[in-house]
Amino acid sequence: MKLSPLQIARYQYSPKLPGMLRNGIAEICVKNGGPTESVADQEKIQALFPNTYGKNEITFQKGENTSPAKKQVVGVILSGGQAPGGHNVVCGLYDALKALSPENVLIGFKGGPSGLLDNDFIVFEDDYINQYRNTGGFDIIGSGRTKLETQEQFAIVVENCKKHGVNALVIIGGDDSNTNAAVLAEYCAAHNTGIQVIGCPKTIDGDLKNEDIECSFGFDTATKTYAEIIGNIERDANSAKKYWHFVKVMGRSASHVALECALQTQPNICLVGEEVAAKKMSLAAIADYIADSVAARAAKGWNFGVAIIPEGIVEFVPEFSVLIAEINELLAGEKADSFNNLPTWADKYAFIENGLTAESMAVFAILPQSIQQQLFLERDPHGNVQVSLIESEKLFSALVKDNLAARKKEGTYNGKFSALHHFLGYEGRCAFPSNFDADYCYSLGYNAAMLIQYGYTGYLSKVSNLSKPAEEWVAGGMPITKMMNIERRHGADKPVIRKALVELEGAPFKFFAEHRAEWATETCFVYPGAIQYYGPAEVCDLTTRTLALEKA
Amino acid sequence: MKLSPLQIARYQYSPKLPGMLRNGIAEICVKNGGPTESVADQEKIQALFPNTYGKNEITFQKGENTSPAKKQVVGVILSGGQAPGGHNVVCGLYDALKALSPENVLIGFKGGPSGLLDNDFIVFEDDYINQYRNTGGFDIIGSGRTKLETQEQFAIVVENCKKHGVNALVIIGGDDSNTNAAVLAEYCAAHNTGIQVIGCPKTIDGDLKNEDIECSFGFDTATKTYAEIIGNIERDANSAKKYWHFVKVMGRSASHVALECALQTQPNICLVGEEVAAKKMSLAAIADYIADSVAARAAKGWNFGVAIIPEGIVEFVPEFSVLIAEINELLAGEKADSFNNLPTWADKYAFIENGLTAESMAVFAILPQSIQQQLFLERDPHGNVQVSLIESEKLFSALVKDNLAARKKEGTYNGKFSALHHFLGYEGRCAFPSNFDADYCYSLGYNAAMLIQYGYTGYLSKVSNLSKPAEEWVAGGMPITKMMNIERRHGADKPVIRKALVELEGAPFKFFAEHRAEWATETCFVYPGAIQYYGPAEVCDLTTRTLALEKA
Repeated sequence: MKLSPLQIARYQYSPKLPGMLRNGIAEICVKNGGPTESVADQEKIQALFPNTYGKNEITFQKGENTSPAKKQVVGVILSGGQAPGGHNVVCGLYDALKALSPENVLIGFKGGPSGLLDNDFIVFEDDYINQYRNTGGFDIIGSGRTKLETQEQFAIVVENCKKHGVNALVIIGGDDSNTNAAVLAEYCAAHNTGIQVIGCPKTIDGDLKNEDIECSFGFDTATKTYAEIIGNIERDANSAKKYWHFVKVMGRSASHVALECALQTQPNICLVGEEVAAKKMSLAAIADYIADSVAARAAKGWNFGVAIIPEGIVEFVPEFSVLIAEINELLAGEKADSFNNLPTWADKYAFIENGLTAESMAVFAILPQSIQQQLFLERDPHGNVQVSLIESEKLFSALVKDNLAARKKEGTYNGKFSALHHFLGYEGRCAFPSNFDADYCYSLGYNAAMLIQYGYTGYLSKVSNLSKPAEEWVAGGMPITKMMNIERRHGADKPVIRKALVELEGAPFKFFAEHRAEWATETCFVYPGAIQYYGPAEVCDLTTRTLALEKA
Repeated sequence: MKLSPLQIARYQYSPKLPGMLRNGIAEICVKNGGPTESVADQEKIQALFPNTYGKNEITFQKGENTSPAKKQVVGVILSGGQAPGGHNVVCGLYDALKALSPENVLIGFKGGPSGLLDNDFIVFEDDYINQYRNTGGFDIIGSGRTKLETQEQFAIVVENCKKHGVNALVIIGGDDSNTNAAVLAEYCAAHNTGIQVIGCPKTIDGDLKNEDIECSFGFDTATKTYAEIIGNIERDANSAKKYWHFVKVMGRSASHVALECALQTQPNICLVGEEVAAKKMSLAAIADYIADSVAARAAKGWNFGVAIIPEGIVEFVPEFSVLIAEINELLAGEKADSFNNLPTWADKYAFIENGLTAESMAVFAILPQSIQQQLFLERDPHGNVQVSLIESEKLFSALVKDNLAARKKEGTYNGKFSALHHFLGYEGRCAFPSNFDADYCYSLGYNAAMLIQYGYTGYLSKVSNLSKPAEEWVAGGMPITKMMNIERRHGADKPVIRKALVELEGAPFKFFAEHRAEWATETCFVYPGAIQYYGPAEVCDLTTRTLALEKA
């Protein structure tokens, strides 16, 4: 067996384009919007992007194609973590370029940005690209995490592009990659390289979102995949009636993924990092909040439940951030050696007790030993605590267990608490894209080709009105500089696309906040089931609850 | 939101019955097969089941229904772990009973066998049952693990049945529950209770399988759900190209689930417990086998892969079983206290070193510390090691890491090895049943009602020819005693249904064995994607590769 039945079937799927791109290449013209300015720090951004700042927003519409005839040689890279639909961006780009002219060439640089630096590439042909239509993964050319940000790198990129006659690059990535795409575009314009740069908004984390980007691609499929699994776990909890499941979900700092999964599955608990930060919640306060649900349900005889924990949660707990900073300081440089040379954990614990402030030691002391050891023993090459490795699902269930033991002593709780743990991440980043992501990504790629053909650079391929059927989607382009502000990064001011965290005043969180008290004590589980690609439209074509609520 | 779009859509699905049950209740008659005898130990089994042994196998066929008119009051229980499709067994049973006569009654006893003992029940009505059609989970009446096996329990069951006028019980469960169903049937017959007992074959583990039962229900959906996730992980591995994923899958002792997932996804490695036992493989030998694949792939520049680990694997490693037995002995009774009172892990380690044989200590010494501590610190209420809690996915990745470090020293390996771990179990036991499981389960329930109507007891509801379209399935009944032999359990001879382990001479394993060398060194991943309920038949209606190979 080489291919699954579903993969073969998905090859036949024709992704839906926005209505305005459906009339054939000869019938796509540009409608100019007004000039743009950055969302903040306009003067600084403009000074940094003299050649690409302030350009017009544009949309495409039906009308005579007025672009100049020109052979296009386009390069494309996938940057950063996998997201479902990446293959379709490439396919849409390829199809549009070939529709513009069979002479056009699409080159894929392999393994992410490093492929551009190493000139590691393939030239796409029909036979190859057809194997990747409507499939998940980034294996079409691979991806990587090299950052493309220095002048030296840009010079190499330009040199490699010139070897192939590449006149445009499409960079498919998250907020950092699109920021770097804008910087590269400016470099290319400033140096009269004749190379255009277009970005595409990718990330399952959902944190690349602003008034121009309604959602990044992959978020829909990844959250549906996690919600399928969480729904199955909920149904199991509600059948066996004896376990509390703590489910950590990917999403880095932002809690968009956790929140979307919660909106789809209505678990008893969903933590939201942004709320924890806003309320300056302590670990003990969070554990108490969860234990309230456990105790209320136990009082009804329900010793089971489901709690969703966002991957980045601990970074948002103020006292925990302080603890991490103190640990990093405590083990900086040579101090790590004297720590590492201590023979037993008891010796190490004494060293820690001696080195932390009383406040941080109090936090450290309530952690389960496995987490304590993880903080000190598994550090990155720079000696820093690896926050992303912290098993926060186990941390919170351990804290809840302790909290419940105290309640039992007080006589306020008399249930059973048995916890199971899950981490959902790699399970969803490479799923077959949902119809939504397949359509959206294909449109982003197709649209990127049109932006190239019309000569734009430093633009993001923008497809909006996404909560409506694809026919009504709006395709166009937005200068990336429009989304930028100045932020302090690694001790220097940098122009960046602002990362979108969950807005506590936004409709998705407010809907959640209005319902969570009921979800915590009742059993309101919803079981989304597996992503469907065929069948009724209401089952197959709806995108996220987040977007529906934001656009309601 | 109360229901997901998929759940609403699935309510509309009409499960497919075997052709011979499609002509309406009035047109179903019995075709007698010959008398049966047990697969082994015939005299002993016959002596234990004087009233129910040796009955005829029967199949149903189209023809005048000759069953006597009789009001049926039937009880049903779900027993043991969840399996997708359990709700449809109940729905099929209900629909057939109501089709036989609107006067018929179906009673669900809640929370598994304990509901029968506690007389905890509901009477099914249309409104209630319609909420559960084609859905996953066992939440329609809950399940439980109480064993129904003593004469005292049987007397209570009969008493409770008489309160409702119940004249037949349907027991939906695994090998133990069906064994107990046969014993209860014999008890009821011997005591002239007028209560019939029918079993239905449930378990995701796939170990309830023999020449009469082609597969247990739930195995199809659970393995498809795990294979979806494993395929997604494979695609992620093949995109990121930097991780080895160790994926443990449920399935208790038998490796059917692991093997089926491997047949669907073609990972680099799949361990099979039955082979490990047959070849008497040591932990080191298994680690070496996996490391061979890691090293061969690294030599090609591929520092990534996927390995499937069956849940029960460590029980099959002879030296590990000995170690476990020695640990249980070492900590038996009061010895546990002196161990627990030792202040540090170093003290405990010395105690262990002193207590184990040299052979077992050699095995213990190569385990990662977290597993060592797990073996000694997390014991069940009887003080025994909890083998099912051993994180064997982490165990093997740690052993492989050590093995590779040795190869690096020798100069035979120069790759990078970074491992991630997953455990798939609760994610699949309550998925919406695949079309196959929805059809199969509904047929099992419908068929059970026909067996009751025709007066059979001690029979298993049997639906076979399952690798063919449902139209060609064969519905009937088989005396459960036919599947029994005598086994030693807890120091006594007991009549039981033989648990089916993976046959090393069977077609599924042989297919795997023929291909695994290529899978280990090449990248032959197959991505099944999510279960589809609509769309092309080859995507939606195929059952497992295991069954296809067995019936080929």
